[in-house]
Amino acid sequence: MQWSEAHRRYNPLRKSWVLCSPHRTQRPWQGQQEKPQVEKRPEYDEKCYLCPGNTRAQGQANPKYEETFVFVNDFSAVKPRDTLPQADGSSAEESEEDELFRAEQATGKCVVICFNPRHDITLAQMTYPQVSGVINAWKKVYTDAVNNPEVRYCQIFENKGAAMGCSNPHPHGQAWTTNIIPEEPDIEHACLAEYAHNHNGKGLLEDYVAKELAILAKAESSGNHAQNRFVDVNDSFIAVIPFWATWPFEVLVVSRRKIGNITQLTEKEQTDFAHILRNVALRYDNLFQTSFPYSMGIHQSFAEPNIDPKSEPEHLHVHFYPPLLRSATVRKFLVGFEMLGMPQRDVTPESAAAQLRAVDGNATVFV
Amino acid sequence: MQWSEAHRRYNPLRKSWVLCSPHRTQRPWQGQQEKPQVEKRPEYDEKCYLCPGNTRAQGQANPKYEETFVFVNDFSAVKPRDTLPQADGSSAEESEEDELFRAEQATGKCVVICFNPRHDITLAQMTYPQVSGVINAWKKVYTDAVNNPEVRYCQIFENKGAAMGCSNPHPHGQAWTTNIIPEEPDIEHACLAEYAHNHNGKGLLEDYVAKELAILAKAESSGNHAQNRFVDVNDSFIAVIPFWATWPFEVLVVSRRKIGNITQLTEKEQTDFAHILRNVALRYDNLFQTSFPYSMGIHQSFAEPNIDPKSEPEHLHVHFYPPLLRSATVRKFLVGFEMLGMPQRDVTPESAAAQLRAVDGNATVFV
Ligand SMILES: O=P(O)(O)O[C@H]1O[C@H](CO)[C@@H](O)[C@H](O)[C@H]1O
Ligand SMILES: O=P(O)(O)O[C@H]1O[C@H](CO)[C@@H](O)[C@H](O)[C@H]1O
Repeated sequence: MQWSEAHRRYNPLRKSWVLCSPHRTQRPWQGQQEKPQVEKRPEYDEKCYLCPGNTRAQGQANPKYEETFVFVNDFSAVKPRDTLPQADGSSAEESEEDELFRAEQATGKCVVICFNPRHDITLAQMTYPQVSGVINAWKKVYTDAVNNPEVRYCQIFENKGAAMGCSNPHPHGQAWTTNIIPEEPDIEHACLAEYAHNHNGKGLLEDYVAKELAILAKAESSGNHAQNRFVDVNDSFIAVIPFWATWPFEVLVVSRRKIGNITQLTEKEQTDFAHILRNVALRYDNLFQTSFPYSMGIHQSFAEPNIDPKSEPEHLHVHFYPPLLRSATVRKFLVGFEMLGMPQRDVTPESAAAQLRAVDGNATVFV
Repeated sequence: MQWSEAHRRYNPLRKSWVLCSPHRTQRPWQGQQEKPQVEKRPEYDEKCYLCPGNTRAQGQANPKYEETFVFVNDFSAVKPRDTLPQADGSSAEESEEDELFRAEQATGKCVVICFNPRHDITLAQMTYPQVSGVINAWKKVYTDAVNNPEVRYCQIFENKGAAMGCSNPHPHGQAWTTNIIPEEPDIEHACLAEYAHNHNGKGLLEDYVAKELAILAKAESSGNHAQNRFVDVNDSFIAVIPFWATWPFEVLVVSRRKIGNITQLTEKEQTDFAHILRNVALRYDNLFQTSFPYSMGIHQSFAEPNIDPKSEPEHLHVHFYPPLLRSATVRKFLVGFEMLGMPQRDVTPESAAAQLRAVDGNATVFV
């Protein structure tokens, strides 16, 4: 194996491969440039539909919230079954039962989670207790989903930045809960379960965490960090650019202990979770001195009651998928070959991790 | 089933689902706006590295080509095995054999295919013989791949427009050939083979074409086009927004006869192929009166010698994946929920198809 030449790497969490072409980093870029997000925003924006006290698109007013604020998305992609208009039986397409025209009603609920009353900050600039408050809001949303018999999965996520389709810079995330298990957590579930089955119940992510920690220990004792994929680590979590990352600076945050979901966090673990999320967000911002765009989301236990934490294969983790490649304005496009063939990356996970380790993870170092 | 409410649809070509939320089309958009591509370009641009006679980044000069021109990508993502530096044995990561750290060398070849000497046109503005000339270039690239024992797949594609990561507006596509079958054609192969196995050798896409044609015939006789997904049709090909489309205006072009790959096209079929590709490109441009961005690519027979056209499940088709949603400036973002959960669309395939049918497919109707 020549790691400096093109190779493909296997993602055991979804049984897929990514093509890695390290030599492509020299490629000049004459294409689309992103607008760097450095404009100074006011603490309160009277035109923002997420700021405290303001009125939203469909007329409801936000409370003057002081910590977090959760409300049902005014343009929900899925809605509770009992809000659907009565079916009159006439709308069924004949082909509905055909194996080439399969469809099913989708129901659930979409909520928006405002992280903070202040319009001008992001997770990176929030205090640790404030980030922990966001985790509390996620726990409540997740628990509501578990208690809702209609719902099977609760996908908590954040789209940050215009490059990731976010239409409002006010710090916020979303949760979409659905009557089905979406494809990605479903694939991961199958991979995790199969691994546990083949390893006497040992978890894939437990083993992965242990192996990355061993590689880290070796790197620290030898001074050779060529294989070190760490971005940050604390007592309860690790943040690495996984061996199989697709996006240039993709980060995987995993709990060191096998916890199924955020409601199982101890107090200490919740604090450590807040620390590592903020640390990753800060390193991102400092890397290209811009408010770093990304989509992030939590994969955890299905939102079903009576799941046995011992036997479920789920292991709490967060995926960060950021698009930037080389600077605040040059992103990676996963387009033609990636859409028709397979994902491709231009920089190794190891070198991307080294770049993130080299920048500050404790404070924003630009204005 | 209430089709006007959220539902999910099954994609039998890749055994995945897409969430369809028709009611979301009312959502206002305050996020990122694309730059519409309407600027007038010169016929020849002395700074373009794809124009005839010009010199490319690494010093080679393009010939004064008059039809198409194919050259090896100066920044290839994969390279032929015999061009790799000699391995000295020392670079292997110890974990290479570990099931959580699996990697393999990737080799192959990347070529750029200039569609036309003129800098200021696209497939939509080319004559039918010129589009047929592009198909000839694709056939040559594909045949070279079949004759190359190192190569197993030839992914022909085009990224058009800055929104799709294209860094040069000169009309061109690419082909990346690899020593492995990339994930997408591999998944499709498995789905097509399984379907044929379960249907006495009948092809999934043969059946799908027949069923869409039957729905079309019914729509035409009843005047009710609610289920009509056609964009265009001729003697040899159909273009539909598939029942399971992910992108708002995604189009699937399929040969009516089960042909494995482009080298098997009859003369008449090649002419019809040129017509339908140009027709789709023209409708796209006319829809939002802009040079419509997309990624498109061909899925066809593996690039392996001695494939028996009778027993292989492959059925030649082209996927068009365009990002625009509502106008030349408002695109769909497949981000948070889509990356972490499953793909989601805001407009039904049927209504998107009606929009594409309503615009001209024969000439560019804006300047
Ligand atoms: O090779 P190009 O056109 O410079 O690059 C474009 O297409 C490639 C293949 O889809 C992608 O990997 C790149 O991210 C994209 O910018
Ligand atoms: O709901 P929002 O933030 O307006 O919309 C954003 O996130 C959604 C969920 O990932 C996507 O479907 C939209 O395309 C994107 O613009």
